[in-house]
Amino acid sequence: MSDGALASWRAGKAKQAILDFVEGVTTEGGSDFVAVADRIAAFDNDGTLWVEQPLPPQFDFVFGKWAQEIKQDPAMAQQQPYKGIFERDPVFFAGIATQEPTVIASLLKAFGRTWAGTTPAEFEAQVRQWMANVKQPKLGVPYTDLVYKPMLELFDLLKANGFRVFVCSGGGRDFMRVFAEETWGVHQENVIGSAAEYTYADGAIVRGAEILGNLNLGPGKPEHIFAQTGRLPVFAGGNADVDIEMLESAKFGLLINHDDADREFVYTSGAEASMAKAAELGWTIVSMKNDWSTMYVNVTVGKLADV
Amino acid sequence: MSDGALASWRAGKAKQAILDFVEGVTTEGGSDFVAVADRIAAFDNDGTLWVEQPLPPQFDFVFGKWAQEIKQDPAMAQQQPYKGIFERDPVFFAGIATQEPTVIASLLKAFGRTWAGTTPAEFEAQVRQWMANVKQPKLGVPYTDLVYKPMLELFDLLKANGFRVFVCSGGGRDFMRVFAEETWGVHQENVIGSAAEYTYADGAIVRGAEILGNLNLGPGKPEHIFAQTGRLPVFAGGNADVDIEMLESAKFGLLINHDDADREFVYTSGAEASMAKAAELGWTIVSMKNDWSTMYVNVTVGKLADV
Repeated sequence: MSDGALASWRAGKAKQAILDFVEGVTTEGGSDFVAVADRIAAFDNDGTLWVEQPLPPQFDFVFGKWAQEIKQDPAMAQQQPYKGIFERDPVFFAGIATQEPTVIASLLKAFGRTWAGTTPAEFEAQVRQWMANVKQPKLGVPYTDLVYKPMLELFDLLKANGFRVFVCSGGGRDFMRVFAEETWGVHQENVIGSAAEYTYADGAIVRGAEILGNLNLGPGKPEHIFAQTGRLPVFAGGNADVDIEMLESAKFGLLINHDDADREFVYTSGAEASMAKAAELGWTIVSMKNDWSTMYVNVTVGKLADV
Repeated sequence: MSDGALASWRAGKAKQAILDFVEGVTTEGGSDFVAVADRIAAFDNDGTLWVEQPLPPQFDFVFGKWAQEIKQDPAMAQQQPYKGIFERDPVFFAGIATQEPTVIASLLKAFGRTWAGTTPAEFEAQVRQWMANVKQPKLGVPYTDLVYKPMLELFDLLKANGFRVFVCSGGGRDFMRVFAEETWGVHQENVIGSAAEYTYADGAIVRGAEILGNLNLGPGKPEHIFAQTGRLPVFAGGNADVDIEMLESAKFGLLINHDDADREFVYTSGAEASMAKAAELGWTIVSMKNDWSTMYVNVTVGKLADV
């Protein structure tokens, strides 16, 4: 591998496992060689590519929009999902994490209510306005400053070795596509996520009220990766139990462990099963605390917290 | 533009319009400049990239499979869609072309019956077996020999100028993906088509009985291009009325006119409305007879017929 690959990764088992795997995949005639056409890499977003605490950033965008709607129509505050969200009901939030059907149904209906009839340009403008104003509450900077620099270096390494890199998140496909190219260097067509139906009429695309197909979580991740690419991934990275099937479907699984209290957050909630699977299936676990010398693309944030 | 671009295209209005458009798109500061990220090109397959007469090649694959099933269970021959197909009922075939709901429903149900439970590897093996044996009845060579060489040169020109090239056909996504890379030089993830649901369980992807979402025809084309890429195309090529919305959604529309009786077939059936739209919206019409000096990637076929 070239010098300088994975520059923000400290020498150690995780870095070495990645470099060894990439070398095996690209060594013609070797037993681990993978044809260029098959070199698909897929990564979760929240908690894998950027900070997901106290809530995945898209929640902030969505809840902000719903708070505006409740101001217009206060009666909404007594209905789900608005009631559970704005009362910070832990039972309701647990229902999101475990995908409790009535909770998910109420969320999907609310997405339809808010964004049905929106054009892609209108939706992009809303996301950009949010991005320009939001700051992560603990670290005090925009979420796009809190993208993990080591993961973008991993993208670079994979691309340099013939991989096509996809982001595959349970979050909204169209939300991520707004910043995918400028933030990750990943084209919009390489972003997979939960998605609404869109209708074309009179020369324009307009969003409908329905979420198409299943959510991009758990088995939905390899299903959507296959639908989008015709393949299952060779390399996959994630950080939570909803990533298990995606990592399991890949030859190399990378599991990000949030163990850095100084620079980020320490938590295993929602990742208990994936940590167990990592041991069972030989996935490579990344200790954010030990394996990453620099944490964020905004290196001043990492440095301040690093001291 | 570089020498040798579009080598199989004769000098003329169509070739010049393409070269001028590509030059405008890539001229920074010019009024027609398009950012690299936005450079999406999308092309229909049947009749645009290869011969679609007497029937689109996938029909031969599908009908062959259904003929085998009827041998096992002759009672099927009295039910739709099998009855209409094997009796060559012109009303039934017209119903396919116009997407008559009961006709389409019978076809979709039959697809489910035949391929539900199939793995991608099994499906690929079936398509490859068909490809190894089928020959186009008039020209006597495999359909992949009858891919239009000028169109692959157009792919090369577009790619050399920063475009990502997608194929967007009403045909089956997974059918096309089997040969997309070797035949078109287009990665599987850049192939958009009508598609079944797939389920992931126990480490494997298996096809379900349902066709997901709408068929990739008419408005379905720009809808699926948007879903797959986050954008509408800048450049689009097609040959039939089911391509109208895709061409209308692009800045540059290319319409292939089947007017070469010697090397191919002469027909406007199913393209009447698109020919009218071409005049209205300023699309570039390609005369296969006059604009293409070489027709097929198997140049011996073109040459024989050319004499």
